Amino acid sequence: MHVVVNAAASADGKLSSRRREQIAISGEADFERVDRLRADSDAVVVGVGTVLADDPHLTVKDESLCEDRLERGESKQPARVVVDSRGRTPTDAAVLDDAAATYVCLSEAASVDARLALTDRAELVTAGDERVDLLRAFAALEEQGLERLMVEGGGELIFSLFEAGLVDELRTFVGPTVIGGRDAPTLADGEGFVEAFPSLSLEEVARLDDGALLIWRVEGR
Amino acid sequence: MHVVVNAAASADGKLSSRRREQIAISGEADFERVDRLRADSDAVVVGVGTVLADDPHLTVKDESLCEDRLERGESKQPARVVVDSRGRTPTDAAVLDDAAATYVCLSEAASVDARLALTDRAELVTAGDERVDLLRAFAALEEQGLERLMVEGGGELIFSLFEAGLVDELRTFVGPTVIGGRDAPTLADGEGFVEAFPSLSLEEVARLDDGALLIWRVEGR
Repeated sequence: MHVVVNAAASADGKLSSRRREQIAISGEADFERVDRLRADSDAVVVGVGTVLADDPHLTVKDESLCEDRLERGESKQPARVVVDSRGRTPTDAAVLDDAAATYVCLSEAASVDARLALTDRAELVTAGDERVDLLRAFAALEEQGLERLMVEGGGELIFSLFEAGLVDELRTFVGPTVIGGRDAPTLADGEGFVEAFPSLSLEEVARLDDGALLIWRVEGR
Repeated sequence: MHVVVNAAASADGKLSSRRREQIAISGEADFERVDRLRADSDAVVVGVGTVLADDPHLTVKDESLCEDRLERGESKQPARVVVDSRGRTPTDAAVLDDAAATYVCLSEAASVDARLALTDRAELVTAGDERVDLLRAFAALEEQGLERLMVEGGGELIFSLFEAGLVDELRTFVGPTVIGGRDAPTLADGEGFVEAFPSLSLEEVARLDDGALLIWRVEGR
């Protein structure tokens, strides 16, 4: 399995404002880069917070990239994965539509009602008691043939993945704005590390749109 | 007046861990870059939170840079400025030693005792009622001949400066680590913007040490 975390952040490392409102951080070239990265992935992964805040569709937008997938014998669209410990994904979420297969990773703490509401619209993966056990959940996804995962956020999920040692690559577009805010979501939230910080190796740094693209390989902790 | 904000942040935009402990983010080349930037400034500015957390000295370390300053008819060391609304700078802080001139910017809320304790060790500048009025304080510094200011943090001061429209340039070294933490200090904390986000223009992007140096010009809000 290969896990790439991809996110656009402001120059001060924020994914959005303290109101959780989406802010246009990147431009057209970055949009196309992200679309290609989705098309090269078996699944696009987000946390439920991102679903609740942005209701993203997570599909590949460029039809020719979808055709390339079909020619390679892949599904037209990569699968979508929501990490959602308590089953809070709304049944009308865009990520649950028919455009692609969807997996919802739950913990044992998700109610029966939540499971029943989601079961017709997604494959349910249960791992962990109170919170999703990411290692077990990702192992279950791998068994379903999902080898190349792209994680699009949010900061809580990204931190948990680093904590679990499940990130191979971090790609960040750093955009030409400052969002600020001690309560604004950042690229990696959660409890935070106080020691054994993950070590990165810079693979690529380049100007893109009006910002910079940084590609880091994760060396471990 | 020209104000440059300079900071080293992790790949996820943190200045330190949630424990406020200093973490080695940059390397030798960035250290030398920062030393040169200090030497090219009339004053190095920090918030009192940085003084309390790190007790920095804020002096130019390379003696030859100090000699260049003297040859240019400048003081051997740039001045140091602490933005400290309530006068919490400890009297034994490294920033108050004899190595360079020091200004402490206070608000009217600083107690008489705090003023008395600091007055022998620093020039006191008072502006603002409850918090330092940065525009007035910086105008007072300019009257003292301090034209080129370099701000080294922390995130609360940096946000306030962006809010006041007082930043001309933002230079960030993005280091090869992830710190994480929703409560860890970021490059720009404070309340955060929810609209009229400062707009930046990327002047330079380059690999430096094991990370990347991004130099942004501030276009306004």
